Amino acid sequence: MAETATGDDRPVLTIDLAAIVANWRMLAKLAAPAIAAPAVKADAYGLGMAEVAPALAAAGASEFFVATLEEGTALRRLLPVASIYVLNGLPAGGAAGLLAHRLIPCLKSMVDIEGWTGAQAPAALMMDSGLNRLGLTREEVSELAGAPERLAKLDLALVMSHLACAEEADNPMNRRQLEQFQADVRRLRLSGKRLSISASSGIFLGPDFRLAVVRPGAALYGIAPLNNQPNPMRQVIKLEAKILQVRRVDRGMSVGYGATRRVAAPGFIAIAGMGYGDGLLRSLADRGCAFLGDRRLPVMGRVSMDLITLDLGATAPDGAVPGAMVELIGPSHGVEELAAEAGTNGYEILTALGGRTRRTYLPAGKHP
Amino acid sequence: MAETATGDDRPVLTIDLAAIVANWRMLAKLAAPAIAAPAVKADAYGLGMAEVAPALAAAGASEFFVATLEEGTALRRLLPVASIYVLNGLPAGGAAGLLAHRLIPCLKSMVDIEGWTGAQAPAALMMDSGLNRLGLTREEVSELAGAPERLAKLDLALVMSHLACAEEADNPMNRRQLEQFQADVRRLRLSGKRLSISASSGIFLGPDFRLAVVRPGAALYGIAPLNNQPNPMRQVIKLEAKILQVRRVDRGMSVGYGATRRVAAPGFIAIAGMGYGDGLLRSLADRGCAFLGDRRLPVMGRVSMDLITLDLGATAPDGAVPGAMVELIGPSHGVEELAAEAGTNGYEILTALGGRTRRTYLPAGKHP
Repeated sequence: MAETATGDDRPVLTIDLAAIVANWRMLAKLAAPAIAAPAVKADAYGLGMAEVAPALAAAGASEFFVATLEEGTALRRLLPVASIYVLNGLPAGGAAGLLAHRLIPCLKSMVDIEGWTGAQAPAALMMDSGLNRLGLTREEVSELAGAPERLAKLDLALVMSHLACAEEADNPMNRRQLEQFQADVRRLRLSGKRLSISASSGIFLGPDFRLAVVRPGAALYGIAPLNNQPNPMRQVIKLEAKILQVRRVDRGMSVGYGATRRVAAPGFIAIAGMGYGDGLLRSLADRGCAFLGDRRLPVMGRVSMDLITLDLGATAPDGAVPGAMVELIGPSHGVEELAAEAGTNGYEILTALGGRTRRTYLPAGKHP
Repeated sequence: MAETATGDDRPVLTIDLAAIVANWRMLAKLAAPAIAAPAVKADAYGLGMAEVAPALAAAGASEFFVATLEEGTALRRLLPVASIYVLNGLPAGGAAGLLAHRLIPCLKSMVDIEGWTGAQAPAALMMDSGLNRLGLTREEVSELAGAPERLAKLDLALVMSHLACAEEADNPMNRRQLEQFQADVRRLRLSGKRLSISASSGIFLGPDFRLAVVRPGAALYGIAPLNNQPNPMRQVIKLEAKILQVRRVDRGMSVGYGATRRVAAPGFIAIAGMGYGDGLLRSLADRGCAFLGDRRLPVMGRVSMDLITLDLGATAPDGAVPGAMVELIGPSHGVEELAAEAGTNGYEILTALGGRTRRTYLPAGKHP
């Protein structure tokens, strides 16, 4: 159980920077000779870019991916010399901002290419190979194939694409996307450039998918890279909430908003200090759980903004007293399990953890 | 459409402080002579306590509700003289922190009462009347009824309870809770104290429910107080995202992660710069929508961390170009509509809006 500050009833999110660094090293070793460039967008998937990025840089990471100019600007303040790629590309009117902070846009369209031509600074080129999200369209690839001088003016540090179904190792779409990407690269005479198609999951699809650069995000933070396979990543976070009150309930009573949940038998409930205002998704109503030691405590009724109610059963377990911490995410109950209960994925569980939760960092240590 | 800063592709959340103040005035007038004390917990339901609370104080609000000691401490820095109630009560070891910032705990249990006895500072008393969340249990009420000297030592500024089903005007549980609360108040000889049972919705259940103090939260921020009835509140927020790229798609192509969504007919899609990393719930996959003017643009496929994909139809509407802003929440598509699409309530829609969204405030004006 976490030590909580006196008088502090907030949930506690403990983030193990050493585990993040260990995950990065494992991925970097697996992907070598490809470079493993961490994705730290969305505040390092909700875990705190200001702590995570310097820890990874200290361990040797030298290239990073963020989503937006604002994230890149914040990362540049933390890492003066790293290569920083902005996945959303060139914002309209944003060239000066990118240049001022030496950020590398992932050019996604002819508009972006034209906007960056003349910038005399490196760029990445984002090609769409079937995700139909950001990246050059089929029409734009054809247009560029007929006008190679338009690419020749760019200093391309990276040519990349992104997989739609990388978590599904057997999905034939993965190889189709890789082949489409490689065909486009040849067509645009970019075979000599550094190439990248894989984020976390793609690394585990085999050596063909690793190319020159991989861009792990989720796996760094402990999320399983492949569906239906054991998770090889170290767990990174522990999320705990404090029991504020324990109550006796009787058959027929209702619990929580909407009186949706009726008590079936006499017993005890605990009210804990975490709710959807802290990022604990409301979809966990009557589905999520917490652990006190090895005792599973199901969520009863709706999740409130600041509180959840846990079923202690007919006999409250030892230690289920006000002030005790219960585990929402940790060794007994991983991110994926909570995500399954909430009907979402581990990524959203992490990014939802809001500003009200108290973050505690376990240091990465010194392993230069 | 919002003016966005040059090079800034983030979503924009526009918060109309004048509308929040107007909602507070409307509720205060309706509830009078009861005092309308705003709930500004969870960062004013995600809209920014630092802006919202001073605007309400300038309009005349003098008592406020937060959930935790930390929120109370932050609010005290903003409002040196307001009465600030901490709904989660007395944290273990937190009396000194509350006293230092003149915060008023909502004592929820015998443990809290004992912890505050001798503090020589005001408290509120939270009684549970059927929600089975925080508050004195039936057993504790009986215990206190037999030992009135334990309450006599407290300076009770407020005696309160909380409704479970207040959004349902016809639910008989509302009156049962009110009667239980009033019976408990009489039993504890607290009838001379200021009483409170209603948050936003309770105000609309009729004069009996207004008592001395009402504690509106959601309705201040534009959320409908009653289910299945017209929303009398002014809308407070507009949420917009920027189109980053427009693509042609053809029959049989897939869109987004998991390739879950197949294109049925040739047409156009727009990729906009907002995702669950910004608090746009992942449950909106294939269910949410955005508006461009009066044209409804359904969400296609999964919501990504940083991006959503919108269906522009067979013919892209005028103005659906990179750089244009689409409306996720606003006059065309209210908080409740987005909440229904996401399978949640408006409260979670608001509190989920994360730190990456750019907030713009429309001033409350000067109406002392």
